[in-house]
This record gives sequence, C-alpha cells and structure tokens, in this order.
Amino acid sequence: MIKLVLLRHGESDWNKQNRFTGWTDVDLSEKGIEEAKRAGELLKKEGFTFDIAYTSVLKRAIRTLWLTLDGMDLMWIPVVRNWRLNERHYGALQGLNKAETAAKFGDEQVLIWRRSYDIQPPKLEKSDERYPGHDPRYADLTEEELPLTECLKDTVARFLPLWHETIAPVIKSGKKVLIAAHGNSLRALVKYLDNIPDEEIVSLNIPTGIPLVYELDDDLKPIRHYYLGDQAAVEAAMQAVANQGKAKK
Amino acid sequence: MIKLVLLRHGESDWNKQNRFTGWTDVDLSEKGIEEAKRAGELLKKEGFTFDIAYTSVLKRAIRTLWLTLDGMDLMWIPVVRNWRLNERHYGALQGLNKAETAAKFGDEQVLIWRRSYDIQPPKLEKSDERYPGHDPRYADLTEEELPLTECLKDTVARFLPLWHETIAPVIKSGKKVLIAAHGNSLRALVKYLDNIPDEEIVSLNIPTGIPLVYELDDDLKPIRHYYLGDQAAVEAAMQAVANQGKAKK
Repeated sequence: MIKLVLLRHGESDWNKQNRFTGWTDVDLSEKGIEEAKRAGELLKKEGFTFDIAYTSVLKRAIRTLWLTLDGMDLMWIPVVRNWRLNERHYGALQGLNKAETAAKFGDEQVLIWRRSYDIQPPKLEKSDERYPGHDPRYADLTEEELPLTECLKDTVARFLPLWHETIAPVIKSGKKVLIAAHGNSLRALVKYLDNIPDEEIVSLNIPTGIPLVYELDDDLKPIRHYYLGDQAAVEAAMQAVANQGKAKK
Repeated sequence: MIKLVLLRHGESDWNKQNRFTGWTDVDLSEKGIEEAKRAGELLKKEGFTFDIAYTSVLKRAIRTLWLTLDGMDLMWIPVVRNWRLNERHYGALQGLNKAETAAKFGDEQVLIWRRSYDIQPPKLEKSDERYPGHDPRYADLTEEELPLTECLKDTVARFLPLWHETIAPVIKSGKKVLIAAHGNSLRALVKYLDNIPDEEIVSLNIPTGIPLVYELDDDLKPIRHYYLGDQAAVEAAMQAVANQGKAKK
C-alpha cells in the first residue's frame, strides 16, 4: 500500500490580509506556524514517516515543511524545492486585497479569476517588478516557463512534468513521499490523481495545515484519500477557504 | 574571484555538556541558535549570497543552515544533505563526557583520540545501538561505508569523494556555495584545500558559528581565507574550542 501525503501550507501573512499572493514570497503568520507544527505532531502520532519531501521555492511552503520535518525528527531527509510546485501565479492581481478587488470588480468576476479553470487574470508586464524574470530564484527558467499570469489550467500544465518525470518515479521506486505546497499546485495534483473534471476542480477546497493522505495502487491510481485528524475541524477549515474570495460585508 | 563559505554549526546541547558527540543527532543549544542567526545576519550584511548549500544529515548542522538561510532570505536555494559531511564518528566514546573521559584516561590519551590524525578511538560493536547501521538515514550506505569509529584520516577519506565528485564541479560551474557542517568534516576540507600536514591539522581549531571565507582561483586553489566579523571574537572562539578536551579542574 503506497501512501502519498499532501500538505497545504498554513496561514500566511497575506492570507490573513485576504490578498492575492501567488508567487509573492510572503511568510507564514503565527497561526500558520502553529498549523505546521500541529501537522508534524499529527503525522508523527499517526506513525507516518517519509524518505523524501518536495516543496516549492516559496518560504510559506518551505517553512511549513521545515516545521513538519522538525516535529517528526526528519530534518535529515532529502528536500527538493521546485518552482513547479509554486502557487498559481495571479498575474496583475498579485498583492491586491481580495475583498477590495471583489468590491471593485464584483464577487462574480473575482470568483471567475480565482476559480475558473481556464480564464487567466490580467497579465503582468515584463517591466513590472512582480515579473518572476527579475527574481534570481527563477534564473534557470526559460522565457516560456516564466508566467505573466496563470489560470488553474496553466498551473496544472506546469506542475505535471514534475509529477511525471520526478515525483511519480520516486514513489514507484518505493520511497515514502511528502509534498508541502500550495492550494492550487495541490489542486493540480488532486485533479490529475482523481481525474476531476475542469468544472469541478474549481470548487474543491484543500484546507491549510491538515495532512491529506492518498492511498495509491502500484500504478499510482488512488484507492482512497482522507484528511488526518479531527473531521469537524477539517470541514471547518475547508469552509474557511471557500469563503475567502467574498467581499467583506 | 570564487568565494566558498564554510560554517561550523553553533553550540549544541552536548558541546555545552562537554560530551563526545560524533554522529549522535543532538540539537543546537539556545546559544547555538543565536550563533547561527548571527552568522546569517553577518553574511547578509557583508553582501554574500549563495546558489546552493551543502550540509550533513545531522540536525545541529541542518538547523544552523536553516537559520542562516532564513536570515539571508535564501530559504529557496537547493540544499544537499550528505552523510560525508557528518562530524567525525567517535566510536565507543560517543556519549561520554569529555572531562570524565579525560579524568579516567588522562588528558593526553583524550587529546590523542581527539587530535591525532590516524589513531582511532575504541570501536563500536555492530550490536551497539549507537552503530549507524541501525539508523534509517544511513540505509543507503554499504557496510564498508558505515563507520565503527573514525580517526581524522578516516573522516578526510570519506569526505573527499563528495568534494571531488559533487561540490568542486558545482563551484567550478560558477555556483556560489555554502557548506554548513562540523568541526572535523570542515577540518578535512581545510586540510585538503590548504595542503596542511597531518601533524598540523590536529591543532587547527575552527570556531563555531563564524563564517570562514575561502577565496579560490579557477583551479580551486586557495588565494586567502578569513573569518567574517570581529577578529577578537574569532580568536576567543578558537581558544574556547581548543580548551574543550581538557579535564575540569
């Protein structure tokens, strides 16, 4: 029985401020730090262990992973950081307050940008300081790989090569894998694993800081999946994520 | 001009207790955490940056690296953990208090075990719980690679393949490298770089938590080296390390 564990980073400073974060490298909030510590404790208590971990190049996911590994006494396992696990790039919306954007464009337009599968938010200009081509961590990417904006379909497309070429072969080799990443890069993986239709994936909400366990067969087809921990807390966390895009009353 | 930076982990809980640590996976003390944070601040203030970092599979070095990278806003760079950067394995002395061992065997014997180049401390039995063959982090090592004890010569021999096959080619490719490791694995590297004779390397003391900068030519031959920060503090830290093996009066 193969078990793959997915972990969405805990609350960040910008989650708290209700802003579009995307590739902006904001840190965890105090609450996010606590969520990550609890994830590590929970995984340890439930007897999980890992041989290797994958994460993005954004510190809210990396710190979530660090705190989780620290809590499990697994600081020594290999950690692979890859931009393909980054959050969806929100284009010109990055940095804007979600409630303000909703008040300006309407809840519906914001929900379209956040949750439609193939409609991109407005693009960044390459001269914009938010363009990832200006950041040394993306120096090895080609111009085609550097996003100006992304819809979820784009995130799926740039995530999947990492899955097929790297993570899936490692899982098949028998290694126990933990992936600490973001709402939309994990949604991309879940869509692929469970073959979720485009129009349904947009309403799938992965709660922060709660380990999501996939049991897979030898061909990496899902047998079942479940969240670790108290199920009422899981439901509440999923609802909190679903409510984020709505304008403050 | 190539700059390679070496960083010995800050004080650990066992440094404080004056015990032979070796491959025992003890954590940093509060002082060690502060040392690592200062190292990160110092490197940042002096304008250093890195493309990749190497460390051991022991948490006192990994945490030192994490705190340093965090302070430099470089959590995103690739980190390679490798057992060849571990501290020297102290065999059957691991876990013993240095002062007690000195009182029992004499300062001279302890100094021989600590600081002779090619005399190994007493070996571990494979049935000993301290034998690294029982630890999952060393599951990929061959029986020949798993140490029962090590003299510094042994540490040099198992460290150098990592240098020649991995780190040196990466430096030559133009990447800026940070190595966060241990007193004896760093001594192994310094011995090799500066071609220090066997009998001299034993008295070379690398202080904890102070970045050691090597300027190298294109063939990775050292041009000069220096410690970052206040030089009086560096001297005091080196003397403190030199005094560690002596029996408490």
